[in-house]
Amino acid sequence: MSRGLLVGRFQPFHRGHLAVLEGIRRAHPDSPILVAIGSAEESYTWRNPFTAGERFEMIDRAVRAAPLDGVEIVPLPDIRRHAQWVAYTESMLPGFDRVYSNNPLTRLLFERAGYAVEGPALEDRLRLEGAHIRTCLAEDQGWRPLVPPAAAEYLAAIDAPGRLRLLRGTSSGAEGHPP
Amino acid sequence: MSRGLLVGRFQPFHRGHLAVLEGIRRAHPDSPILVAIGSAEESYTWRNPFTAGERFEMIDRAVRAAPLDGVEIVPLPDIRRHAQWVAYTESMLPGFDRVYSNNPLTRLLFERAGYAVEGPALEDRLRLEGAHIRTCLAEDQGWRPLVPPAAAEYLAAIDAPGRLRLLRGTSSGAEGHPP
Amino acid sequence: MSRGLLVGRFQPFHRGHLAVLEGIRRAHPDSPILVAIGSAEESYTWRNPFTAGERFEMIDRAVRAAPLDGVEIVPLPDIRRHAQWVAYTESMLPGFDRVYSNNPLTRLLFERAGYAVEGPALEDRLRLEGAHIRTCLAEDQGWRPLVPPAAAEYLAAIDAPGRLRLLRGTSSGAEGHPP
Amino acid sequence: MSRGLLVGRFQPFHRGHLAVLEGIRRAHPDSPILVAIGSAEESYTWRNPFTAGERFEMIDRAVRAAPLDGVEIVPLPDIRRHAQWVAYTESMLPGFDRVYSNNPLTRLLFERAGYAVEGPALEDRLRLEGAHIRTCLAEDQGWRPLVPPAAAEYLAAIDAPGRLRLLRGTSSGAEGHPP
Amino acid sequence: MSRGLLVGRFQPFHRGHLAVLEGIRRAHPDSPILVAIGSAEESYTWRNPFTAGERFEMIDRAVRAAPLDGVEIVPLPDIRRHAQWVAYTESMLPGFDRVYSNNPLTRLLFERAGYAVEGPALEDRLRLEGAHIRTCLAEDQGWRPLVPPAAAEYLAAIDAPGRLRLLRGTSSGAEGHPP
Amino acid sequence: MSRGLLVGRFQPFHRGHLAVLEGIRRAHPDSPILVAIGSAEESYTWRNPFTAGERFEMIDRAVRAAPLDGVEIVPLPDIRRHAQWVAYTESMLPGFDRVYSNNPLTRLLFERAGYAVEGPALEDRLRLEGAHIRTCLAEDQGWRPLVPPAAAEYLAAIDAPGRLRLLRGTSSGAEGHPP
Repeated sequence: MSRGLLVGRFQPFHRGHLAVLEGIRRAHPDSPILVAIGSAEESYTWRNPFTAGERFEMIDRAVRAAPLDGVEIVPLPDIRRHAQWVAYTESMLPGFDRVYSNNPLTRLLFERAGYAVEGPALEDRLRLEGAHIRTCLAEDQGWRPLVPPAAAEYLAAIDAPGRLRLLRGTSSGAEGHPP
Repeated sequence: MSRGLLVGRFQPFHRGHLAVLEGIRRAHPDSPILVAIGSAEESYTWRNPFTAGERFEMIDRAVRAAPLDGVEIVPLPDIRRHAQWVAYTESMLPGFDRVYSNNPLTRLLFERAGYAVEGPALEDRLRLEGAHIRTCLAEDQGWRPLVPPAAAEYLAAIDAPGRLRLLRGTSSGAEGHPP
Repeated sequence: MSRGLLVGRFQPFHRGHLAVLEGIRRAHPDSPILVAIGSAEESYTWRNPFTAGERFEMIDRAVRAAPLDGVEIVPLPDIRRHAQWVAYTESMLPGFDRVYSNNPLTRLLFERAGYAVEGPALEDRLRLEGAHIRTCLAEDQGWRPLVPPAAAEYLAAIDAPGRLRLLRGTSSGAEGHPP
Repeated sequence: MSRGLLVGRFQPFHRGHLAVLEGIRRAHPDSPILVAIGSAEESYTWRNPFTAGERFEMIDRAVRAAPLDGVEIVPLPDIRRHAQWVAYTESMLPGFDRVYSNNPLTRLLFERAGYAVEGPALEDRLRLEGAHIRTCLAEDQGWRPLVPPAAAEYLAAIDAPGRLRLLRGTSSGAEGHPP
Repeated sequence: MSRGLLVGRFQPFHRGHLAVLEGIRRAHPDSPILVAIGSAEESYTWRNPFTAGERFEMIDRAVRAAPLDGVEIVPLPDIRRHAQWVAYTESMLPGFDRVYSNNPLTRLLFERAGYAVEGPALEDRLRLEGAHIRTCLAEDQGWRPLVPPAAAEYLAAIDAPGRLRLLRGTSSGAEGHPP
Repeated sequence: MSRGLLVGRFQPFHRGHLAVLEGIRRAHPDSPILVAIGSAEESYTWRNPFTAGERFEMIDRAVRAAPLDGVEIVPLPDIRRHAQWVAYTESMLPGFDRVYSNNPLTRLLFERAGYAVEGPALEDRLRLEGAHIRTCLAEDQGWRPLVPPAAAEYLAAIDAPGRLRLLRGTSSGAEGHPP
C-alpha cells in the first residue's frame, strides 16, 4: 500500500497545510496520508505554543470539516539527532513511500535515504506561514482567514490569542523552565 | 466530541485487542477510538520485539480488514515518570473522556485524575496474552489463530518467528546496546 | 560550616532512618543535616512507590514531630552514571563534609573523592528495611510500628497500603509505561 | 499545613528575592516557604553561571543572616516540557497551596491547574534583576549593594566576578560542551 | 579504505577478545580495526564494573604489548533504541565495511542494513566470557590467565578484585543511584 | 604514560588544528595525543554540520597524510552539564595529564580539577576559525587552503559545500527536528 508522509510542526495548522493535503489527495486518491506532528514534546513557547494534542485537534477538526478522508495524524517527538532522523521516523511510523516537505534539510535527509520527496507548491507563502500567523494571534488581528474555519473555532475556544500574547511577552519563552 | 482511549504495547496486536476495540465500537458507535501504542521507542527486545511502526501496521491492517471505522492509531514513547503519565498523555493526544485498561496501575493513575476507566472484559485471557504469543512465535507454533488474519499475514511477511527466536536466545535482550 | 549528608531512597522513611538522624544530631549538635531523597524521579513502582514529594512529607513530618532541628530535605533525581555521581551531588547540593551511608558503593565513590564516610549503626536492620516494610504495607499488617508515628499517619492518609497492594500485583511495576 | 512556593533561578539570589521572602513571611507568619531553585542542572553559562549548590548556599546564608525562619530550599532540574511542569513540581515537592511568581507563563500554568498565584510586588525592578546583576559582576562594579551581604560575601569567596567575566567572553556560553 | 568494526562491552577485555583482533589482523593485514566500547556510559555495576576510560586502558595496553598495529579504540554510549542502532554507529564512527560479532541481535541489525557480518571463531568460550571472569575477579581467583598480561597488570593496579567483590555484594548494583 | 588531550568540535578540522597537533608532538615526541571530538551527537546544523564519523574521517586522513603518529581519535557526546564535564571526560577517556585548549571555560573547568592546561599558540586565528571556514564552504570559495589537503579531498567527496549552503538557508538549522 502506498502512503504519503507530511511532516510539520503545525504551529498552528493553517490553510496552506490544508491545501497541501488536498493536493496530495487529488494526486493519490486512494492512499492514506500520514501527518506527523513534529516537535510533539514542545508547547507553551513562542515557537511552539500548542501541545501536540491541541495540534492534533486542529488538524483533525479541519480535515473532518473539509471533508478529507484517509488522513492519519500522529505526534512525533524530536530526537535531536539529525543523522538518525530518517531511521527514527521509519521505526515510529507505518510504511510510507513518498515524503512531502518544502524544508531543504528534510528533503536532503530523506533523499539520501532513497525516498521520493516532493516539495508541494505553497500558495500565498508569505501570509500562510506559522510565525506570521502566531504574530497575528498575539495581536488578535487577521488570523481567522488564515486558518481553516474548524481550526479557527478551536483556537478561539482555547484562547490561543491570550496564550500567544503572553508567550510573546516572556523574554525566554523557548526555555524548559517557566520562570 | 466523545473519544475513547485504549493504551497498550501490542507486542503483538492480538485477537483479544481486536475484540476490545469491537466492544468499544458497539458501546459508542459514533465516537473515535484512539489506540495509543505504548513503549513506542522500544523494539528488538524479547519484551518489545516490534517497532512502533510495525505495531501500527498490525493494528491498521487488522482494523481495516475487520472492518472497524473511526480507529486512530498513535505511537506513544515512554517518559518513565509515572507521576506525570496522565499529564503527558493529555499533552500528546487529542481530547479523550474514557480510558480502557485492565492494568491496575493505569486505572489508578487515570482514576486519580478524574477519568472514567473501564476494564474491558477479556475473553480467553490465558492464550490471548502478549508473552504467550511471543513464545508461540519463537517456536513458530500455534500463533496464527491468536492474532487477526491480517496481522498474521504481516507477522509472517516480516519473519516475526525468526526475530522472536533470535531475541529469546539473547541473554540480555532488554538492553539498549545490542552486543 | 560543617554539614552532614545522608542519602537514601526512603521508600518509606522508617524508624531506622530517624534513629540515624538522631545519632548524627547528637554527634554534631550544631550542624545542619542534609537529607537527599535519591531516585527522586521514580514513583508508583514496587521498588519506588512514593513520589519524592510524598517522601519529603514523611521525613518532614517525622522530623518536626521528633522534634529534630536543622534537617534540610532535598529531592535528588538519578543521573544513572555512577562515575559522575559525586560530581553531580557536589553541583546540586550545598557544601557538605561528612557522608552517612551503609551502602558499600556509595561509600566507595565518596571515599575515592576524599570524603569522610561513616556507616551509621543501624538497629534492628532486618525489620527496619524498605523492602520488608513495603511488603508489610501491601499486606496492611505490622507496618505501623516500623515507621515514625507522623509518617504512619501520612501513609494512612494517602492509602499507602492500597497503592502497595496494587503495585505488588503488576507484573512490570518497574517499567516507565503503566500498561 | 499551608505552604507557599517561590520558584526562580536565582542567578544570583538578590535583595529583591529576599524582600519577596520577607513579604511572604509577614503575610503567612507560621507557614513554611519552599524556595525551588529552577534550572538546577545548569551552571557555568552566562545565563546560569552558578550551580544549584552554589545558589543553595547564597539563599541559605542570606536567609540565616536575615534571619528568616521556615524557609526550605530545594534544587529543581528542568524537564523541558511545559505541559507537564505543574504535575512535575507536584511530584517532586511537598504539598503547597500558594505560588509566588511574576513570570506570566508560570502564572498561567499554575492558574490553569487551580492554584492561587500571587505576583509579589517587586521594588526597584530595574536594578534588582538577574541579568543586570550578572553584568555588574562581570565588570566587578556595583553588584555588592544589590545582593544581601551574606550572599555578597559568598559570591566574593567563589570569585563570581572572575567567572562572570569569563562567561561573558565565551561566544557560546549556553552550550553543553565547553570547547 | 577498508575498515573492520568490532563492538563489545569488554567487561573486562580478555584473551578471547585479543585472539579475535589477531584473527582480523591476519585476515586483513593492512586495514584499521575499530574497537567500539559499547555501554560506554555505564560503570560501577556488576554487569559493567569498569568505566569506558578504564576499558580503553585495558585494550590499549594489551594491544600495545601484543603488539598489534592499526587498532583504533572509541567509547560508544548506548542510545537504547535498537531500531536506530546501525544509523547511530554510522553517524558516530568513521566508515567501516565489515562487522565482527557473535551476538545474534547485532548480526541481525547490521545484516538488515546490508553489512557483511562475520562471527569470529571464539576459542574456550566457557572460560573466556565476561560474566565468568567478573566472578573470578570478585573471588580474586583464577582471573589472571584469562586476560592479557598487560590488562591483568592494569586490573590489579585499580584493585578490580576489590571493586567486583563490592559490586557483587550490592543488591541493586544495576541502578543509577548508588544507595 | 603521559598523554595529552585536545578537545574541539572540528567543524571542520582545519590547518590550525593540525598545527596544534604538530606542536604537541614536537613538545612530547613519545606521548599519545588524544583528540576528542566534542558535540559528537550533533550534525546537519549550521554550527555542527558534520557527523562525528565524518569529523573522525577528516582528522584521521589529515593525520595519516602529515604523517603524524600516536594520534587517537574519539567521539565525545555532550552531557550538557558543565559542572560534571571533567568527571565525565575522566570516565570516558583513558588517562591524560595535559589538556590543550584556548577556550577559557574549558581551561577554567580543567584547572579547577587540578590539570595542567596549555593554550596552544594559534597562528592565523582569523582565517583558521570554524565559523569562517563554514561560511567559505557555503559560498564554495577559498576554503581549500584553510584545511589540510586530505581533509579538503574528503570535504569535496561528501559535497560539504552543498550541505553548508543548504544549512545556511534553513531558518532553524540548530533545531533537532528538520522541518
